[in-house]
Amino acid sequence: MSQSIAANPDRLLPVDPGTRAIARELLAEVEHLPLISPHGHVPAEMLAEDTTFPDPTALLVSPDHYVTRLIHAGGVGLDQLRVGPGPHSVDSRTAWRHFAAAWPLFDGTASGYWIRSEFEHVFGLPAETVDSFGAETADAVYDAIAAKLAEPSFRPRQLFEDFGLEVLATTDDPLDSLEAHRLLAKDESFTGRVLPTFRPDPYINVAHPEWAARVDRLTAEAGDGVGGYAGYLRALENRRRYFVENGAVSADHGVRTPLTLKLSGPEAEALFAKACRGQATAADRDAFEGHMMYEMARMSVEDGLVMTVHPGSFRNHHTATFTQFGADTGHDIPFAVHYTEGLRPLLQDFGTAKDFHLVLFTLDETVFSRELAPLAGFYPSVYVGAPWWFLDAPDSILRFRSAVTETTGFTRTSGFIDDTRAFCSIPARHNMSRRMDAGFLARLVAEHRLTEARAHEIIVDLVDGSPRRVFKL
Amino acid sequence: MSQSIAANPDRLLPVDPGTRAIARELLAEVEHLPLISPHGHVPAEMLAEDTTFPDPTALLVSPDHYVTRLIHAGGVGLDQLRVGPGPHSVDSRTAWRHFAAAWPLFDGTASGYWIRSEFEHVFGLPAETVDSFGAETADAVYDAIAAKLAEPSFRPRQLFEDFGLEVLATTDDPLDSLEAHRLLAKDESFTGRVLPTFRPDPYINVAHPEWAARVDRLTAEAGDGVGGYAGYLRALENRRRYFVENGAVSADHGVRTPLTLKLSGPEAEALFAKACRGQATAADRDAFEGHMMYEMARMSVEDGLVMTVHPGSFRNHHTATFTQFGADTGHDIPFAVHYTEGLRPLLQDFGTAKDFHLVLFTLDETVFSRELAPLAGFYPSVYVGAPWWFLDAPDSILRFRSAVTETTGFTRTSGFIDDTRAFCSIPARHNMSRRMDAGFLARLVAEHRLTEARAHEIIVDLVDGSPRRVFKL
Amino acid sequence: MSQSIAANPDRLLPVDPGTRAIARELLAEVEHLPLISPHGHVPAEMLAEDTTFPDPTALLVSPDHYVTRLIHAGGVGLDQLRVGPGPHSVDSRTAWRHFAAAWPLFDGTASGYWIRSEFEHVFGLPAETVDSFGAETADAVYDAIAAKLAEPSFRPRQLFEDFGLEVLATTDDPLDSLEAHRLLAKDESFTGRVLPTFRPDPYINVAHPEWAARVDRLTAEAGDGVGGYAGYLRALENRRRYFVENGAVSADHGVRTPLTLKLSGPEAEALFAKACRGQATAADRDAFEGHMMYEMARMSVEDGLVMTVHPGSFRNHHTATFTQFGADTGHDIPFAVHYTEGLRPLLQDFGTAKDFHLVLFTLDETVFSRELAPLAGFYPSVYVGAPWWFLDAPDSILRFRSAVTETTGFTRTSGFIDDTRAFCSIPARHNMSRRMDAGFLARLVAEHRLTEARAHEIIVDLVDGSPRRVFKL
Repeated sequence: MSQSIAANPDRLLPVDPGTRAIARELLAEVEHLPLISPHGHVPAEMLAEDTTFPDPTALLVSPDHYVTRLIHAGGVGLDQLRVGPGPHSVDSRTAWRHFAAAWPLFDGTASGYWIRSEFEHVFGLPAETVDSFGAETADAVYDAIAAKLAEPSFRPRQLFEDFGLEVLATTDDPLDSLEAHRLLAKDESFTGRVLPTFRPDPYINVAHPEWAARVDRLTAEAGDGVGGYAGYLRALENRRRYFVENGAVSADHGVRTPLTLKLSGPEAEALFAKACRGQATAADRDAFEGHMMYEMARMSVEDGLVMTVHPGSFRNHHTATFTQFGADTGHDIPFAVHYTEGLRPLLQDFGTAKDFHLVLFTLDETVFSRELAPLAGFYPSVYVGAPWWFLDAPDSILRFRSAVTETTGFTRTSGFIDDTRAFCSIPARHNMSRRMDAGFLARLVAEHRLTEARAHEIIVDLVDGSPRRVFKL
Repeated sequence: MSQSIAANPDRLLPVDPGTRAIARELLAEVEHLPLISPHGHVPAEMLAEDTTFPDPTALLVSPDHYVTRLIHAGGVGLDQLRVGPGPHSVDSRTAWRHFAAAWPLFDGTASGYWIRSEFEHVFGLPAETVDSFGAETADAVYDAIAAKLAEPSFRPRQLFEDFGLEVLATTDDPLDSLEAHRLLAKDESFTGRVLPTFRPDPYINVAHPEWAARVDRLTAEAGDGVGGYAGYLRALENRRRYFVENGAVSADHGVRTPLTLKLSGPEAEALFAKACRGQATAADRDAFEGHMMYEMARMSVEDGLVMTVHPGSFRNHHTATFTQFGADTGHDIPFAVHYTEGLRPLLQDFGTAKDFHLVLFTLDETVFSRELAPLAGFYPSVYVGAPWWFLDAPDSILRFRSAVTETTGFTRTSGFIDDTRAFCSIPARHNMSRRMDAGFLARLVAEHRLTEARAHEIIVDLVDGSPRRVFKL
Repeated sequence: MSQSIAANPDRLLPVDPGTRAIARELLAEVEHLPLISPHGHVPAEMLAEDTTFPDPTALLVSPDHYVTRLIHAGGVGLDQLRVGPGPHSVDSRTAWRHFAAAWPLFDGTASGYWIRSEFEHVFGLPAETVDSFGAETADAVYDAIAAKLAEPSFRPRQLFEDFGLEVLATTDDPLDSLEAHRLLAKDESFTGRVLPTFRPDPYINVAHPEWAARVDRLTAEAGDGVGGYAGYLRALENRRRYFVENGAVSADHGVRTPLTLKLSGPEAEALFAKACRGQATAADRDAFEGHMMYEMARMSVEDGLVMTVHPGSFRNHHTATFTQFGADTGHDIPFAVHYTEGLRPLLQDFGTAKDFHLVLFTLDETVFSRELAPLAGFYPSVYVGAPWWFLDAPDSILRFRSAVTETTGFTRTSGFIDDTRAFCSIPARHNMSRRMDAGFLARLVAEHRLTEARAHEIIVDLVDGSPRRVFKL
């Protein structure tokens, strides 16, 4: 009596039958539109090289900190899940068995939903198999997926096409050569757009352990022979231009808080020098990072890169885990952030700048109704970023739409971004977003707050128009 | 196939058919009760003079910063919308065309819903016209509304009656002569109650650019010849008494934060003197404003004016806009506020004072369950203000009721306030509130948490009893 | 035409008929499972002595600050409700009449729902009687309940059995002899488990007026003759061991904020000495309390007591009420708290400690999605505590599940705790929790996010497995 969950045509739609019927119609408009993914973490090399995926664990478990963190909470060490650079204490199959045994932890989670969707839709596992996934069936599922991964149709480029991806943005170091992107752009056999994204965090955040070394290298490589603060700014501008030339549409900033600050040239130069001497205090570091956000906005106004900001995550909360396994291993924890005062210096000068786009993301959902919707409802530059990371899930998406729409409508939101390093989860994530938007719009129709005709236009705009417009695609 | 949205009898009611049926019955109890509006921004002069409205733009667009802000976010300059004092760079019709072109931005917003309701209910536009409102039909709609505005039945007093308004409070400067209110009170041909509200912000907030000049004028005009801090307090007391004599029931305070402070007489006097000398620091200003909130509460205990507090808005966030267009032009942005510690000095001394009413509003909805409901559920003086400004919308109202009711029930909330300067939106706003309360109560009935009989009593009390009781009408 | 609300089999279940049908099936799995109450405030003496309850007011009104606070907000002095230690200004019947007259204030509140359930289910009052409860029927209801209380079946132990209680934890002073617990454990005629809980707040919070005296007594009684800071720690360890020997499974901490701090031995000793001399500043007190949270975690790692933390309540907000009526009389008011940074020192060292359980409760629901779910989704020690106090209510529970589940699933939550001193409300509270979980799970099933089979397993685990596992029962 197993039922397919991931294939149920009504999955994630509202439970009220009348509303569900409206949502179905809305979904039909967009379910099969191409996927536009203007922000994420899939490496371009994967597509450039188009090599087969090594094994189910390396594809679905080890690199996905959404997944490993919850298994870790359930009591399995990250070393048992092959997290971080090797050598690993277990083989892939053993790690997979840990995952299978931990599968019940994922009930009700977004990750559980995506993985189930991948099992059914990407790997074609029958619903019965997915229903019975666990310690006893771990090996059989591992083998079934491994067999699929060996097939030519499971190479990255073929999946890119099968997923219906049209645009995929990666996230890249400012000094990245972008070789993989250039190769893909030149390759006529590959028709997708794979765009780099300029992500300068370690060059801007003085607290980053490698900041000074990175800045040295940046200035040396791209500073046009100019040294000091002037060379540093020049180098950032040059590398941004290089990214633009290679198709980049946005610059992404993973700052600690949304604090911005406008320093005078001499003030900024003095802080920079102090930081280079390793003498910056915590307050100096915050001031310099805040000032550099201002400078990044200035450069975005000049070179047209959309500025996306992802603040509010306490990175590497558990030092012992960071030491052993590195960053992005599941212990980044959100905290409260404040945009209204923090962004003011930047918005004072650039909030109404022509063609400037500033997309604000949050992990603190209290700011959706309190700060982001009001900001995006006045400043032509500001867009509310789609729910991100821990909030990238069905109920969270509905809370976001409910919190934002009444103040700022639909047009001031960014369109969906999947922000994922889990390539095979991309279709399920976009599909989920479309379903939640269909359900939200259907409720507004059922409550007679929107005509059905407009709702049909809006959902197409949310899925297709918004990301193209906001990310200048 | 156009459907009227604004006239649909089920608009805004819950989608579940069983719950909707209960909500309909509840709504029927109150839909046609008189409107009581104990806090808002319609000028009394409009009713006293009873002149025709100049044109559709001047009535519906330019003065309503809910509307102009979103058009501005869409890329139209405020000068194109005739915001602020003239001279304006476009005529009314051109500004209206900008509004019409921007109309899709309003889908799903509260303002969009109100305007649609006004189009249909106040101006009698057919649903088809409203459905097709946009750049191409801008002129026709402008002309249709302009023609209505020329009719005698569209004069303010007739609308007041047609809207079913019984009580309308205005918001007034402490030195206002209240001539318009006095004229209306004496005029036997006008049967509504138009009440002034004492709003002393610029006389209390030392950071206000005109504070010193206003305080001088206040003391000179109403200080009974006493100077300094004593004369300042005396003048405030005198003007409050004048407002009471002219029908005022409340004093409203648009403070930055809900901080209150009890200073000794000499401390307050010293701070006042320092501020008069233009030497107050930011900390001094906060302390003085906090202390004056304490003094305002003391005066409310003495003269019976209900004290309403509206904190948490960062006023005039974008300086360039403020400089060009003035205050209240759409760039006030909320931020996080904290009532529990901030209000304690005031509540320590007046929280249980006989007949003292303190109505607390918020733009930060996190405080509904965390602070306001717990405060109102203990202190006899405290009432939770209805959702305000950005939160004055269907989903927001349901979130408010859900957050507040389980701790403090229905009787400790203020009843609806429309807080609007958009006169023609008043009926739609009150109707919206009644529908949301009907829907909320209907759900409690359908979940067997409330008897239907009690729900019928409660909705009448929310619409009629609460505002009369809380605002001492 | 009175309908029983409290006995309606569908009470609190979702309104959508399809979802409700699923919820009914889920509820049937757990509605009659034994009650496990691992945290609460019922005194063990009540069961040890098994004396009859004195009267309806003393049982249902005076000790329940959820109830008296709302009547107080309605304008009745706490002296009229027999709150706090006597002498009281009114008799029990008069206080009951105040309660009856205030009954409409409770519409829609959690307390109103529980009391109604108690009236119907515990005291067997007919629905008509409950519907008409109020000033006019106060005496009749008082008499009906008083008559019940005089029956032998209304003695505490019989109710314990009738309620289906299996485990009931109390909250106890570290120096409590635990005589009542020992007596119950030895008594073969009583088969329930009544467990003490170690609650050292007044020995840890330097700001507590009796801190110094309590610490002296603690060290003298349990410090093994060692003095100073070393003796203080020794005494806490010894008393924890005594609690463990007498069945305790947890230590509970009602701290002001979730701040933790790791001081060196000499630093801690110096602070302790300073506090003993009465010279601790506010910063010293916070530091010492933060450090002691760290020490409490260390002891929990060593002795196995589950560590539960209840921060974020501003205790005794209204001094005049505290002076006259004492603590826990309804004026504790929540405020915003921050766990991510505050808990880091503790989690750095103990977050992955074997068998350490740290259950984090909150009155600030913004942290559910932002901080608690992410923490519990990584640290094996951390569990998200069930909604507590003001959040222990139907809508609040659904908001909690919605905010937490998508990030961290069901297994990282604590299971329900009733936290009550209102003994007769325990069945209604647990029943409410089961109904809300059934409704939440039913929605996930109806949205095809969870199979019905798994939902049936999960609800049993939530009601039975989670509390046993999390509280090591």
